Amino acid sequence: MAETPVRLLSVGTALPGPPIDTAALAGAFGMDQVWRQWVDTFIGTRTRHLAVDLSTGERRDSLADLGERAAVQALTRAGISAEEIDVVVLGTATPDTLMPATVNVVAERLRIDGVPAFQLQSGCSGAVQTFDVAASLLATGRYRTALVVGGDVIAKHYDVKADLTALPPDELVNYVLFGDGAGAAVLSTAGPPEAPVLRSVLTRLSGLDRAPGQILRWYGLADRDTSEAPASEDYKAIEEFVPVLAEETADELLDDLGWDRAEVDYLLPPQLSVAMTGKITARLAFPAAEEVSCVAETGNNGNALVFFQLDRLLPRMTRPSRAIAVAIESSKWIKSGLALERA
Amino acid sequence: MAETPVRLLSVGTALPGPPIDTAALAGAFGMDQVWRQWVDTFIGTRTRHLAVDLSTGERRDSLADLGERAAVQALTRAGISAEEIDVVVLGTATPDTLMPATVNVVAERLRIDGVPAFQLQSGCSGAVQTFDVAASLLATGRYRTALVVGGDVIAKHYDVKADLTALPPDELVNYVLFGDGAGAAVLSTAGPPEAPVLRSVLTRLSGLDRAPGQILRWYGLADRDTSEAPASEDYKAIEEFVPVLAEETADELLDDLGWDRAEVDYLLPPQLSVAMTGKITARLAFPAAEEVSCVAETGNNGNALVFFQLDRLLPRMTRPSRAIAVAIESSKWIKSGLALERA
Repeated sequence: MAETPVRLLSVGTALPGPPIDTAALAGAFGMDQVWRQWVDTFIGTRTRHLAVDLSTGERRDSLADLGERAAVQALTRAGISAEEIDVVVLGTATPDTLMPATVNVVAERLRIDGVPAFQLQSGCSGAVQTFDVAASLLATGRYRTALVVGGDVIAKHYDVKADLTALPPDELVNYVLFGDGAGAAVLSTAGPPEAPVLRSVLTRLSGLDRAPGQILRWYGLADRDTSEAPASEDYKAIEEFVPVLAEETADELLDDLGWDRAEVDYLLPPQLSVAMTGKITARLAFPAAEEVSCVAETGNNGNALVFFQLDRLLPRMTRPSRAIAVAIESSKWIKSGLALERA
Repeated sequence: MAETPVRLLSVGTALPGPPIDTAALAGAFGMDQVWRQWVDTFIGTRTRHLAVDLSTGERRDSLADLGERAAVQALTRAGISAEEIDVVVLGTATPDTLMPATVNVVAERLRIDGVPAFQLQSGCSGAVQTFDVAASLLATGRYRTALVVGGDVIAKHYDVKADLTALPPDELVNYVLFGDGAGAAVLSTAGPPEAPVLRSVLTRLSGLDRAPGQILRWYGLADRDTSEAPASEDYKAIEEFVPVLAEETADELLDDLGWDRAEVDYLLPPQLSVAMTGKITARLAFPAAEEVSCVAETGNNGNALVFFQLDRLLPRMTRPSRAIAVAIESSKWIKSGLALERA
């Protein structure tokens, strides 16, 4: 990384609406008790938050709304004003519009202007990708403090009138797994010495000759009548490859830093679902690490996930300690991870 | 910039289908001779290329198709193999899908793997934004050679059966102004001394309290019936602000480098339309600079434009010379520009 260490000064998060448990989801979509038990047993995710009102279909929050709230919280917690932000990086799979980029809208609402702002089109590795880009920008020495934001709002694809009983299981599960939300963080080369240092960030394409495990489409004026499903997943491939890629990522981070597995105090594992996260955490086998997860409560909210995990991590890093986060994007397969250390 | 200079080794470009002149466009959409004269007089753009067949509506090329072709040309011209690429950055307003990012697809087709790949959601400043991010990544010293790609394919929003005679003028003009295409470039800290050095890159939000000049929407499963137009522009605002922001950008680049206006040999001005480009070039008033434009032939193909201009510039930079490119994004207003110098 940079000669001057990049520090994580603060994290903020935002969730739309109340938590929606699986019973409420089952009620809204007319699913039965067997289905609820299947969700509890094989998915494990208990609640998720949605930017759309399940009973009316009304949209409550845009990505810009959630991104703004998360960013305000992060800035407040860091005691950093908008004028001190030198660059903004936002990651999402679901921008409010194609143009303008949502990052420009969020920046304006925060009264940030006259600085570069970049928006990454990204999935489950998006939070780490925003950290990667922001840390590189800070490492050039041209900027001192970066605001990074990540989030997703799937409301445009969330059809509250859908007949879930007619959906194939691999489309049905999307309604259980995913949620909406946003997170933000302040990274700076000018942070106080007690703020954790971003010791390493890693993002790598790993999709050669491997079909996409997840596709999320958008429709235009000319193809609104297409029969292509908005989202499709290959859960077999995801179950097969995500744990492998997660292990490779963790090993690479440890090698890079010269850290021993036993020296890691906190593990932030991938958050596809409670069940998958459990399997991956077991496989990663960090003997002394406390797991920091959020998916049981937030659902898989994509680009926001790592921010929610960091939000739970930071208050726990009260003494010298090390943390590793791993996120795997199954769309066209990206390994990503980061390491934090508090001196 | 970096201690080790970042050099522009090569550029590649790709256009879909044959050039479509305004007469062909008028024929396809049933517009009359008066309209053609209006286009000739007030827009000036003579041809554009489309990834959709005007007579059948069939899609010829995806963004990944065009991005791949442009990248192959750039790599071939630089004599750089896929294995030598350490990072990929792609900018677009119109990704093929939300997930996976198109950059992942392009990278795989080129057999690039195991490296970071980032996709920016961007508009007319997108090419410069990709240069900004790539140059910063190279400046960290962690990477040596970057592939940057930019392009747009508006086919999903291009309705060949649209009744243009019923459209308001500000929507109608979209069919004239825009085109599809992609460009690519190889940037490296290991280039030969005769390759131009990227002396400065600048991107800045400039949209505070200024409404978006351009909005491009996407539709989801739940809002396919919306009456919101896919694209809307505020041409009055664009005509008013783009020249001002272009001048500010050029001045800032010159100040930053300590260059005199008269020392610039080539000017790559914003490419909204032939008419607008003419006005802006006159206002920028570089006394000795040769203008390098492409919009009359390519149409405004967004994230590809600066690549097409650079493709025309590079063969002309046969001796010590200086070039400045300016691109303004009117969506939520971004100033951007870059400076190249051949020693």
